[in-house]
Amino acid sequence: MNNLTTPASAPPVSQLVLNLITVGTERPFEGILDACIRHGITAVSPWRDHYADIGVQRAASALRERSITVNTLCRMTGFGPADDSSSWQKAIDDARRVIDEAAALGAVSITLTGGGVASSGGSIQDARQRILEGIQTILPEARAAGVLLAIEPLHPMCAADRGAISSIKQACAMATAAGQGAMVMIDAYNTWWDPEIETSVANAARLICGFQVSDWLVPTTDLAFDRGMMGDGVIDLRRVRRMVIDAGYEGPVEVEILSNRWSARPIDEIISTVVQRFASVC
Amino acid sequence: MNNLTTPASAPPVSQLVLNLITVGTERPFEGILDACIRHGITAVSPWRDHYADIGVQRAASALRERSITVNTLCRMTGFGPADDSSSWQKAIDDARRVIDEAAALGAVSITLTGGGVASSGGSIQDARQRILEGIQTILPEARAAGVLLAIEPLHPMCAADRGAISSIKQACAMATAAGQGAMVMIDAYNTWWDPEIETSVANAARLICGFQVSDWLVPTTDLAFDRGMMGDGVIDLRRVRRMVIDAGYEGPVEVEILSNRWSARPIDEIISTVVQRFASVC
Repeated sequence: MNNLTTPASAPPVSQLVLNLITVGTERPFEGILDACIRHGITAVSPWRDHYADIGVQRAASALRERSITVNTLCRMTGFGPADDSSSWQKAIDDARRVIDEAAALGAVSITLTGGGVASSGGSIQDARQRILEGIQTILPEARAAGVLLAIEPLHPMCAADRGAISSIKQACAMATAAGQGAMVMIDAYNTWWDPEIETSVANAARLICGFQVSDWLVPTTDLAFDRGMMGDGVIDLRRVRRMVIDAGYEGPVEVEILSNRWSARPIDEIISTVVQRFASVC
Repeated sequence: MNNLTTPASAPPVSQLVLNLITVGTERPFEGILDACIRHGITAVSPWRDHYADIGVQRAASALRERSITVNTLCRMTGFGPADDSSSWQKAIDDARRVIDEAAALGAVSITLTGGGVASSGGSIQDARQRILEGIQTILPEARAAGVLLAIEPLHPMCAADRGAISSIKQACAMATAAGQGAMVMIDAYNTWWDPEIETSVANAARLICGFQVSDWLVPTTDLAFDRGMMGDGVIDLRRVRRMVIDAGYEGPVEVEILSNRWSARPIDEIISTVVQRFASVC
């Protein structure tokens, strides 16, 4: 596995997908899309919050009018916690809405983080079992809608409250158990520390349906919203990108920076920095 | 691996080791020891900061006078970052002082977290290689001093700046590569999320030289100093303890709570809560 000697060259900007959480969820959706166009970005990944106020149909029109495509819709979650049967049904109902919205937006995939253990009790093993059952329950409907489920392992620091899938290997096992249409999203931020990342990415192979980048800051002051711009942290992003390419992945590279600091800046400053670092670091 | 059906009964307080970081590093060492005695605790694990002002010889006397034994001395670190040769030599020199101090205190082991990647550059793979070289360099001297090196995988959120050993499996591989006298410290807080924890602990077997507990809070607001008292979080501590016992570990259970909130409380409140939760949760 030590043949990662040649770093990949920088990806062309045509391969860049901007995950819209990078600019926060408070700006008007159409204004965000216009800013993307100004910087040559023609593919985005929204969170559902981005169009909650205008509705998915108007969001879909805004995208079509600008010929902007959607990579992944964030996110399907809530299966993990063991509250009661109504909470489970709520998660399933919510998942159905996500599928409808993803189909309306023409999204390639839905990012599925699954949910955490939460404070409601139950072990992490139980949470993982419920997430797998959630995937198996909803997958036929996603398949029928022509949308992939992109199972995303989150950083282990998110296991308790955001997503209990904690390694690429575990996400792949779930995708394989669930069957056709269930794939895996690899986010360098969530997985760079994994002692087995090389083997895990290689084994993931054709299950990989997305690749996301940002950077790990030193120090990091928040467990969710203190990610860094590529190049400002310690992750060897080009090395991870080399791994996913070597595994056979040929899709886009998505920039997803959850950062209260970045999202508060002027949108053109955020996106121009993304484009510049994408070319120099990724 | 699914035969963990019988939870272990609560451990007797005679098995409790208090890691002194739980009460912070600002209190006088002898006062901390007196408080331990008041609550029936006769074994501790100091950090070097705990006796920096009085010196290790006086600390050793204070322990002897109270018949308090030392489990592990925290901590050996600094091998990871690729600064320059002087920084490496500084880490080795420092490691030698830790061994001298551990011997003076009669400590069973030294906890080795190794160091992170830091902002000085270099990949996490490089950092891990340097940590292994640090262990191999210093191990003969630890062995000669009769002190074990307890290699501790830290939580992956600490990989960048505190310790780049990120799984039990990786710590075991390093201990095995280094040879006799190198063992592994398993901290439930650092490892509870690991999808392969059961297999990894079982395989660690006789390499396990220590077991630590605290709890994962929801939410967690700091990457280092927001651990919870046992029972206040989401970790199934008894399940993890069952794993280490089934792996053959017969040593003490150490309470190590890095928490700015807990360490600020009155010392008798902290320790009495530790003793009570130890009996009811661990």
